[in-house]
Amino acid sequence: MNEETRENVAKRLARIEGQVRGLQRMVAEDRYCADVMTQIASVHEALRAVGRELMRHHLEHCATEAIRSDDPAQANAMYDELMALMYKAVR
Amino acid sequence: MNEETRENVAKRLARIEGQVRGLQRMVAEDRYCADVMTQIASVHEALRAVGRELMRHHLEHCATEAIRSDDPAQANAMYDELMALMYKAVR
Amino acid sequence: MNEETRENVAKRLARIEGQVRGLQRMVAEDRYCADVMTQIASVHEALRAVGRELMRHHLEHCATEAIRSDDPAQANAMYDELMALMYKAVR
Amino acid sequence: MNEETRENVAKRLARIEGQVRGLQRMVAEDRYCADVMTQIASVHEALRAVGRELMRHHLEHCATEAIRSDDPAQANAMYDELMALMYKAVR
Repeated sequence: MNEETRENVAKRLARIEGQVRGLQRMVAEDRYCADVMTQIASVHEALRAVGRELMRHHLEHCATEAIRSDDPAQANAMYDELMALMYKAVR
Repeated sequence: MNEETRENVAKRLARIEGQVRGLQRMVAEDRYCADVMTQIASVHEALRAVGRELMRHHLEHCATEAIRSDDPAQANAMYDELMALMYKAVR
Repeated sequence: MNEETRENVAKRLARIEGQVRGLQRMVAEDRYCADVMTQIASVHEALRAVGRELMRHHLEHCATEAIRSDDPAQANAMYDELMALMYKAVR
Repeated sequence: MNEETRENVAKRLARIEGQVRGLQRMVAEDRYCADVMTQIASVHEALRAVGRELMRHHLEHCATEAIRSDDPAQANAMYDELMALMYKAVR
């Protein structure tokens, strides 16, 4: 990853860690379970934003390099990887 | 929440906090972005498991109480809440 | 289902059938695959709207009846069913 | 699309049209709404399989061509398109 992406992703993840600690506090304080679920939805959303940033970076760099390579096996392995990532990391 | 649910959820969230810290380490060590995305997928999966546990608890307790109440407005508010939670917290 | 819900759902499904026929035409006319995918996303969206309408109806009628019944086994079977439906029919 | 992909996709879509007609029959026969929702989940699944087949084709052909082109604007437009498709067509 380039410096900018890495810093963005690191900042987002630090915020997500804070959100997860917030969730633990909510549970310890016995907050209404619907509110805890709503907060879980926010963490999913924040993780998805990280996933999107990484996926864009992955397309622009790793995938592009593999697809431009002269070795067709490399491009093929990248198509497989992209399909797998899309279906598990993107939600 | 009853004691058992609260402890289960607390344990799961502590594990998720650890996973998010693991993600931060992966980024700091400049690991391959596809591996970071795969790890993000695991965190989504673990959060979903918490969401499922809370949703089940919510149905069995809060929703049941509201639906059994004599006040139709309470049942109606619960249908609205369940629909909203289902579509944002369950994924 | 009551008459109103059944008619709404029937209308939506007829429209979805039309969308799926539209997709077949797009493929027969060899349209750009990204446009076909975008159209597939619209069909998912339309199906989700039907799912939402049915889920709301299910909560208000079938689930409410089971949860209000004097037989705890009936309520329990409904919690199981709701959890399963939520995770497969709601997306 | 090449001939093989087009035929596969056409066959899948014809089957999906049949499933949607089956859904309309279920509603006309006033079947249990949970069973209708389960059947809706099958249609989502079948549509996702078409989406996957198209996405793979799109990566191998359209995306590869754009990414290999000498015009950086073309690759960039493809990254945008892939990100959008991933988040709306793949679910």
